[in-house]
Amino acid sequence: MDIKQKIEKANEEAAHRLNMGDPVLVDIAPAQEVIPGMQGKMITHSGPPIEWQRMCGAQRGAIIGQVIYEGWATSIEEATALLDQGKIRLEPNHQHQTVGPMAGTISPSAPVWVVENKTFGNRAYCRQVEGNQQFGDYSEEALQGLRLWRDVWAPTLRKALHTIGGLELKPIITKALQMGDELHNRHTAASSLFANAMAVAMAQTELPKDKMLWTLKYVTNHELIFLGLAMASGKAIADPAMGIEYSTVVTAMCRNGIEFGIRVSALGDEWFTAPSPKVDGLYLPGYTAEVAGMDMGDSAITETVGWGAFTIGGAPGILSLVGGTPEEALAYSREMKKITVTTHPTYRLPALGFAGTAIGIDIRKVVQTGITPIIDTAIAHKDPGYPKIGAGLVRAPLECFKKALIAFSRKYDVGK
Amino acid sequence: MDIKQKIEKANEEAAHRLNMGDPVLVDIAPAQEVIPGMQGKMITHSGPPIEWQRMCGAQRGAIIGQVIYEGWATSIEEATALLDQGKIRLEPNHQHQTVGPMAGTISPSAPVWVVENKTFGNRAYCRQVEGNQQFGDYSEEALQGLRLWRDVWAPTLRKALHTIGGLELKPIITKALQMGDELHNRHTAASSLFANAMAVAMAQTELPKDKMLWTLKYVTNHELIFLGLAMASGKAIADPAMGIEYSTVVTAMCRNGIEFGIRVSALGDEWFTAPSPKVDGLYLPGYTAEVAGMDMGDSAITETVGWGAFTIGGAPGILSLVGGTPEEALAYSREMKKITVTTHPTYRLPALGFAGTAIGIDIRKVVQTGITPIIDTAIAHKDPGYPKIGAGLVRAPLECFKKALIAFSRKYDVGK
Repeated sequence: MDIKQKIEKANEEAAHRLNMGDPVLVDIAPAQEVIPGMQGKMITHSGPPIEWQRMCGAQRGAIIGQVIYEGWATSIEEATALLDQGKIRLEPNHQHQTVGPMAGTISPSAPVWVVENKTFGNRAYCRQVEGNQQFGDYSEEALQGLRLWRDVWAPTLRKALHTIGGLELKPIITKALQMGDELHNRHTAASSLFANAMAVAMAQTELPKDKMLWTLKYVTNHELIFLGLAMASGKAIADPAMGIEYSTVVTAMCRNGIEFGIRVSALGDEWFTAPSPKVDGLYLPGYTAEVAGMDMGDSAITETVGWGAFTIGGAPGILSLVGGTPEEALAYSREMKKITVTTHPTYRLPALGFAGTAIGIDIRKVVQTGITPIIDTAIAHKDPGYPKIGAGLVRAPLECFKKALIAFSRKYDVGK
Repeated sequence: MDIKQKIEKANEEAAHRLNMGDPVLVDIAPAQEVIPGMQGKMITHSGPPIEWQRMCGAQRGAIIGQVIYEGWATSIEEATALLDQGKIRLEPNHQHQTVGPMAGTISPSAPVWVVENKTFGNRAYCRQVEGNQQFGDYSEEALQGLRLWRDVWAPTLRKALHTIGGLELKPIITKALQMGDELHNRHTAASSLFANAMAVAMAQTELPKDKMLWTLKYVTNHELIFLGLAMASGKAIADPAMGIEYSTVVTAMCRNGIEFGIRVSALGDEWFTAPSPKVDGLYLPGYTAEVAGMDMGDSAITETVGWGAFTIGGAPGILSLVGGTPEEALAYSREMKKITVTTHPTYRLPALGFAGTAIGIDIRKVVQTGITPIIDTAIAHKDPGYPKIGAGLVRAPLECFKKALIAFSRKYDVGK
């Protein structure tokens, strides 16, 4: 076999593994109980590795909030001092089989979704989506969302989930993609389907009535609750595709608001980075592009496994949030097929004549065509302490793919 | 004002009333408790008026089933004899502020959805969708669905509904239309959202645990449960548009498997009929077009208020059931704007750039353009005793609209 054939074969294997992914929600547990290496005064964050001093405003804000939430400090100043002194260990989520939306911060007592990829037996974790704390907002109101998850919603859902012995997510994802969700920023259908499953689970579980009702009301009215589940699923699906010799398939895309990073199967856990791009978006009243932070979050794991903007043609409902026309949305979904290895046999889009979703980004195709992965995402403020300010579309920087391809060529001694 | 101006003004009023409709689920009750004139040995059915002797096979089958369900007979033969002897009063649903899918049969003890149009104070009723009995299937299994609704699911949901004091349906409909439902044959989203709401209602109600759990499981897994709610909503929305002098707006479309009938605002409760057309459809394994009955059911009330095939461009998920391409579906939704008076201010389709749904079918426009309303529908067998055999698309017969326009011209002495 020549190198090209070896790559094709490896990519087929990577695509096969991605397509075989079978995510099941197996637990909702405090991070310190389940995330490998999560202990002590430690906070994990979204994106490629970055030190506290270089972090963007929103991620700093979220980390400050998380320090206060854990009770390690009682004020912003005190929290900042601890961080400046390096008293809090900061590590990327992806280093811990974990992902988190926006700033993506997770601390030991914070409950996370635990998703197992039944086919391969690996697990992945994601933080809850509870409000604005993950955007860098450290107000009392923002932190209250974290506390309620820890004290009320997570323990209640956890008990109910144990009653039913876990919840298969593939059927929910399959259905939601046919109901106008793209599973990055629009989770209206998946969240409703998930809420129904949990309602049945809760009804079969001995629970204090007040907490049960509170949780049921919260879950049935939380249109974004599935984001954390989609992300944990994406990570659980993508991880088994890592480390296949000769494979040029992307296994992670993430951003910390300063850098955009990708991982490539054959290149293991190395990050190939470029500056985080500016999101082309629509802004909430009172905010403009001038105060916007750069692209941020591990949520592009959804695009990595073929959802998000890759399936936006089937989710025109999101256009009121991110801008654009239904025709453009369909064009994005079609375009992504030019840079992917295959389409998914189960995840299908009715608006594209039930075509499978484009999956398995090939860095060669990206560099050859110049077509970079499209991502639809939320927008955070450039400074700490703010809630969500908008949403929009962004392209992964070509630079990451070029760097990865150079590293690949070096590793396998591919001639020019 | 000349006649044309009078018509335009009247149609504006009719469209205004349709757009102002605000359906609220206020009860789930036995038909005899709530449907005006429902008493004694009586069964109501879908479509324009028709005698037992002329009825199609599926409707005969459903009526036989309903007679056995009520305990008025213990066998098909006994039930048929009663019906042949005229011992059971048969009347159209529409004569009783009521609608029913397919054969549409309703008998006194059968539970119905009670929907009130909050804006105008009128009520409408629709039967449950429980399986195959409404397709003419009178097997024990089919009748069991009716019994479970009567004995378990309806009483449980009724109590829960009373706890929350009714349920606003407009928000659910608005959302479901943005989640790929067209609310005639695809109710995946609306049913899920409805189940979310009822789960919360049930959790707040003192109910026997076994019945509650059974009902919760049924409701959270019934993707068509909202059909009855959409139909009752459609009827509640359409009725206030009846009886506006000079208005050429259609206020009902329905079929009994023999005849297709329409009503027109200015022409009150008169039916303008033509033979029921053949549905162009996809068939379930074991069935073909040769054994198909003609178009049947009151469910075209959904198209009458601008849903169903009128919004199919936003519901490509249904094409696996009824056939056609996403492009054709979009074209249907756009085409319907040519025969309607207006678009809805709240019910919007993301796939059409958030355009409002086409609403208020004008018989003049239908006759002038030759474009007849498109309907997507299920298909029943031509003979009694069968379950659902397929689904497809059908056009309302032009003849109904021509007849209505002639009657209109006569009534208002419109010159040729």
